[in-house]
Amino acid sequence: MTKGGTTITVADAGEFGLIRRFTARAVPGRYVLLGPGDDAAVLRADDGRVVVTTDLLVEGRHFRRDWSNAYDVGRRAAAQSLIDVAAMGAVPTGIVVGLACPPDLPLDWADGLTDGLRDECEQLSVGVVGGDVVGSPVLTVAVTATGDLQGRPPVTRAGARPGEQVAVAGRLGWSAAGLAILARGFRSPAVVVNAYRRPEPPYAAGPQASVLGATAMIDVSDGLVADLGHLARASAVRVELDSSTFDLPEKLREIASALGLDPLDWVLAGGEDHALVATFPTETVPAGWRPVGRVVEGTGVLVDGAEYAAAGGWDHFG
Amino acid sequence: MTKGGTTITVADAGEFGLIRRFTARAVPGRYVLLGPGDDAAVLRADDGRVVVTTDLLVEGRHFRRDWSNAYDVGRRAAAQSLIDVAAMGAVPTGIVVGLACPPDLPLDWADGLTDGLRDECEQLSVGVVGGDVVGSPVLTVAVTATGDLQGRPPVTRAGARPGEQVAVAGRLGWSAAGLAILARGFRSPAVVVNAYRRPEPPYAAGPQASVLGATAMIDVSDGLVADLGHLARASAVRVELDSSTFDLPEKLREIASALGLDPLDWVLAGGEDHALVATFPTETVPAGWRPVGRVVEGTGVLVDGAEYAAAGGWDHFG
Repeated sequence: MTKGGTTITVADAGEFGLIRRFTARAVPGRYVLLGPGDDAAVLRADDGRVVVTTDLLVEGRHFRRDWSNAYDVGRRAAAQSLIDVAAMGAVPTGIVVGLACPPDLPLDWADGLTDGLRDECEQLSVGVVGGDVVGSPVLTVAVTATGDLQGRPPVTRAGARPGEQVAVAGRLGWSAAGLAILARGFRSPAVVVNAYRRPEPPYAAGPQASVLGATAMIDVSDGLVADLGHLARASAVRVELDSSTFDLPEKLREIASALGLDPLDWVLAGGEDHALVATFPTETVPAGWRPVGRVVEGTGVLVDGAEYAAAGGWDHFG
Repeated sequence: MTKGGTTITVADAGEFGLIRRFTARAVPGRYVLLGPGDDAAVLRADDGRVVVTTDLLVEGRHFRRDWSNAYDVGRRAAAQSLIDVAAMGAVPTGIVVGLACPPDLPLDWADGLTDGLRDECEQLSVGVVGGDVVGSPVLTVAVTATGDLQGRPPVTRAGARPGEQVAVAGRLGWSAAGLAILARGFRSPAVVVNAYRRPEPPYAAGPQASVLGATAMIDVSDGLVADLGHLARASAVRVELDSSTFDLPEKLREIASALGLDPLDWVLAGGEDHALVATFPTETVPAGWRPVGRVVEGTGVLVDGAEYAAAGGWDHFG
């Protein structure tokens, strides 16, 4: 968007102009009783409990404007918090968004972000129900999501017991492969780069796993081994992964080979696909879930019987 | 905190170390069913609805580390969101916090922030139930608060009707006076500077006003005239303020006189005391509320019958 050859910025729109644009682009969600525009929103919480979780995305650390467009950053920012709700076995009911942005941020970029946030939510019939917009030298997006447990207990990280199966829903390694491609200055193959730009978290698998008896669950955002480490610690168990169960896609094998990398590292240590990993007491796991290992007595996470070296996970200050 | 003469930073503690410190300093709130440490928290929502609101504080824009210590920033960050819940007529039930911070932030500072967030919540028996910690060049605190309406309809900005009284709960002008003192390089009088550093929002007055029939309500964060402007617009009414009703404290008069300023400007245009302003259909207003004007037909906000010139309010990109 330009005016007289100059790019229109968020400072031109002003705080209240920006809020009006946010609100105008919003769509009503099925849980919304009072949407944006007041001191706070009101959402249905039919269950009598509410699930709540928050996440930040910071430019230069979690996204780059030359690698992802505004729409994709919006999709990813919403996805990151919505899948945390699903990882408790709950259905998402709404998000609120805090946007800190430089005054010279193009207004088009803010609109794109808003559209991405909205569309990621809309596939779940969920609304963007409120927010805050402030100036900052560093573009930062904070998303808080709420959810409803539909009468079920939350599926925490602490319920895994020896003898249970470990299973995954959603993709693993694709986002990390896409990031590796972008980091080397390439832009294709699109199917892999887009997996980084716009993850497709298995939202429905969370409540489904809860209904079908999952004893523990976590979303994979730091990497499978690192996140299972959190689950193993909380449950006081060991998780043994069997790498032969990972169906490494031919596409990832090809790219890893071209880059001189091991595609298994992407699967075991790559975050941001926002897959779910859960434990089940049954021999069969629900449709859409793939068995990848076992819960045993002990501590930590083993891959094919050994410690996994590259599994440090992602420390945001590392 | 130092080690071998060197200040210990958040990077030394690491992301997970920092989260452990947050969690260790938390206290359980009365609405918390599942606290920090999982993918999401679970709060009671007895009413079957949940109120939700989010706000950001950015260093250099909303606070300065040489003007406020970490504890006070924490108190203020929590207060800002908690009072938004009260402004709907609801009682706060919990907060989640996103912290983006430079890796070299002293660990003491992060601990102080955590303590401030916790203590502001604890006076309301509310817990800090979750959060996210990420690295960023700019220190940013995002607080999302939830609340319970206790069976009442939300008090929005849109319900004011001609003939009603306008009343205020909480202090006005003190925070702006404190900021004016700090901005000129002074540090006293402490009672005024502390009003800026640590506002004392009238949390209980929000649900009280709802119970006693308030028809519209908003929290004063942009300034009384600016925020009443939002209320007047949403309600399609005019608000007429009578400046003779403002009991200007002697302290503020003295300071304004010394600085060559009009203390009425602090009362009418100063934000961040987080007072509440509401409209009541009755001739008497509840205890703790002070009548300051009337709702009439028309648009906008008049002070003593005239437009108020300095009432632009605070545009975060202005």
